[in-house]
Amino acid sequence: MMPMRKRIPLSARDARYPWLILVPRRAGLSEIHDLKHAERMVLVEEINRASLGLKAITSAVKINVGALGNLVPQFHVHVVARKLGDAAWPGPVWGNGLAVTYERDVKAALVKQLHDKL
Amino acid sequence: MMPMRKRIPLSARDARYPWLILVPRRAGLSEIHDLKHAERMVLVEEINRASLGLKAITSAVKINVGALGNLVPQFHVHVVARKLGDAAWPGPVWGNGLAVTYERDVKAALVKQLHDKL
Repeated sequence: MMPMRKRIPLSARDARYPWLILVPRRAGLSEIHDLKHAERMVLVEEINRASLGLKAITSAVKINVGALGNLVPQFHVHVVARKLGDAAWPGPVWGNGLAVTYERDVKAALVKQLHDKL
Repeated sequence: MMPMRKRIPLSARDARYPWLILVPRRAGLSEIHDLKHAERMVLVEEINRASLGLKAITSAVKINVGALGNLVPQFHVHVVARKLGDAAWPGPVWGNGLAVTYERDVKAALVKQLHDKL
């Protein structure tokens, strides 16, 4: 089984949407089909937990999940809480305008809430 | 275990990108966390097969996978073959311009190739 790592890297430092990125702890992966069977089983459960966690701590009406990687080749999965009328609604968050920087306290509180849930 | 259905519905009728949409055969699902554990196991393997199949029959440099559902509530997963310089590259395909209709022969050939691979 592959331990997955949840973190909030550059592209998720966007206060417009609560946003997690899951990154498998194995270099050289770029597609879901580069993962082994057991790794995919872990991945989908990690996505599930991230989805439930975001839903629990936000007023999201929809969770968006995406593995694109057109710009960053290392395989990663976005899990994003969407709200009616958010900056990109109902379009995708990727490629939509400029990120808004989190206020430090707001980000710390969100990360703490997520850590408690996950 | 949940049988998954692969089809090319409305939003994937876009000749700009080879594009599959996986729709679980169960009504009332909208989030990945609405699926049961065993259903998620099937889903990720169906995504894997769709990804491998698209990679095999296209010159895709990247497969994009997305479960958005902001407009269509029934849970569904997009699996899209991306090429350098395609109409939306390197952005997401969703919300990008107008779909281009397939010529009937081209679509039939693509569907046949996919059926053979999947």
